[in-house]
Amino acid sequence: MRETDVLRLINARVIASGDDAAVVPFKGTNLILTTDMLHRESDFPTGTTTRTIGWRSVAVSLSDLAAMGARPLGVLLALADPDLDEELISGVLDGALACCKQAGAQLVGGDIDRQRELTLVSTGVGEAERPVRRDGAMVGDLICVTGELGRTATGLNLFSTGDTDRANDLFCFPPRLEWGMKLAGLATSMIDISDGLAHSLHLMASQSRVGFRVRWKRLPIIPLLSDQISGAALRDAVLFTGEDYELLFTVPADLVSRIDPTVSFTMIGHVTEHGFTLDDEQLPDRGYEH
Amino acid sequence: MRETDVLRLINARVIASGDDAAVVPFKGTNLILTTDMLHRESDFPTGTTTRTIGWRSVAVSLSDLAAMGARPLGVLLALADPDLDEELISGVLDGALACCKQAGAQLVGGDIDRQRELTLVSTGVGEAERPVRRDGAMVGDLICVTGELGRTATGLNLFSTGDTDRANDLFCFPPRLEWGMKLAGLATSMIDISDGLAHSLHLMASQSRVGFRVRWKRLPIIPLLSDQISGAALRDAVLFTGEDYELLFTVPADLVSRIDPTVSFTMIGHVTEHGFTLDDEQLPDRGYEH
Repeated sequence: MRETDVLRLINARVIASGDDAAVVPFKGTNLILTTDMLHRESDFPTGTTTRTIGWRSVAVSLSDLAAMGARPLGVLLALADPDLDEELISGVLDGALACCKQAGAQLVGGDIDRQRELTLVSTGVGEAERPVRRDGAMVGDLICVTGELGRTATGLNLFSTGDTDRANDLFCFPPRLEWGMKLAGLATSMIDISDGLAHSLHLMASQSRVGFRVRWKRLPIIPLLSDQISGAALRDAVLFTGEDYELLFTVPADLVSRIDPTVSFTMIGHVTEHGFTLDDEQLPDRGYEH
Repeated sequence: MRETDVLRLINARVIASGDDAAVVPFKGTNLILTTDMLHRESDFPTGTTTRTIGWRSVAVSLSDLAAMGARPLGVLLALADPDLDEELISGVLDGALACCKQAGAQLVGGDIDRQRELTLVSTGVGEAERPVRRDGAMVGDLICVTGELGRTATGLNLFSTGDTDRANDLFCFPPRLEWGMKLAGLATSMIDISDGLAHSLHLMASQSRVGFRVRWKRLPIIPLLSDQISGAALRDAVLFTGEDYELLFTVPADLVSRIDPTVSFTMIGHVTEHGFTLDDEQLPDRGYEH
């Protein structure tokens, strides 16, 4: 089965929110729970350092917490590898701890296993009084993204040309926890861009039962990517390559001025009644499948 | 490196409790967090059904929560497989949901990935006002185990002889959450027997800085195992085969009568100042490494 079909099968039987993370009411607030699996073959290009592997393996879960507007309470990391050599473990720990530190999170435990392929599974546990769902976008809301788009696409290009230092830097993306928490209470919907901007827009739209209208020239593309590629290649990289891990959110126009000035974001379009368009043309729901 | 060395390396750098699960103070109580990775080759003998795989994959984390005396709040399950075929996913979900239901827990989310070997990682999130640690055993306490010992060893024997129905039944062990919660506040230390009784006794003793004195004839061995094997083979299976997932706990003699009558347990020995003995002979710290 395709992963999307598998998820449909699971969602039909599990109390799944269809959000970036599960929401469990607890003590007058909500626990926010998410887990993500990465492995060598499909997630880490040749040249990825063990530190980047560790960073990214916890950053993906922290990014899910960010997309819910959650405050991180703890991170768990399970690691499997055929050899479990000290250099690997130390490097992964370096990266995971550095990412947690930058994000204001704490690595509290994990598990170790021996397995044919390097595999990492992180779990993020957070708290949010008012978790931001995917399904709250309203017609007329502004559509915004944080930071810049195309970070992972740029990194992949650099890995393929052997510029692994800069590639590793780009791959160590900052989970947008601070921004996510500041957007909670203002954003009507939020999602982290893990499978490409196009797919994230479609997820927001389908779950909110709305449409979107987005402008290409408004997209905050990382300058390094525009230097590397152009035309259709650039368009594909920005729209359909996964793993930007920026926040895509919607916000009522009259609330946008109340967003904390430390949140770096760009308005890229607005929520419509129907239609899923980029520059008035249909934007396909095509994304990166992990 | 050996897994124990890896864990030592990690514990030196992560705020790890050295317990069955991490403890994160929150809202006047504690969140209890644990994650466990299982995979086809080392954890599931030929003949294991997909339902048993699903059951066991969440039961191991729930058992860690039980060992802390925690109430389960939510379970996450990440699954990777080369094919992700519908029969596999359905079977695993059947088992995971059945185990959660029996344990009073709820599967709230997860992740899906494609990978060469079937891999399952479950995360258990629970709450305990007074989590039961491993390091609180005191000289003179009684040493007890819940249920019966040798369940997984018996199952492995049945798998090897082709009696897969009974083997699968035994492999779907019940996480002792109810009993764990009832023991919290009375037990001075608690641990789930995941790597063999001998290793669990040594963990309790080393973390509590005490010794133990245990009697072979007191051990509640599952009758089916005594029918299958005897002598040294039986002794090895009971003491050194992992994954019984019963609770090993210590309790002051004057509190033992206050243990809720629904908790099925057996007194197997007592805590001493030093020495790690079974029937007055040194019991080696040898266990099953996953």
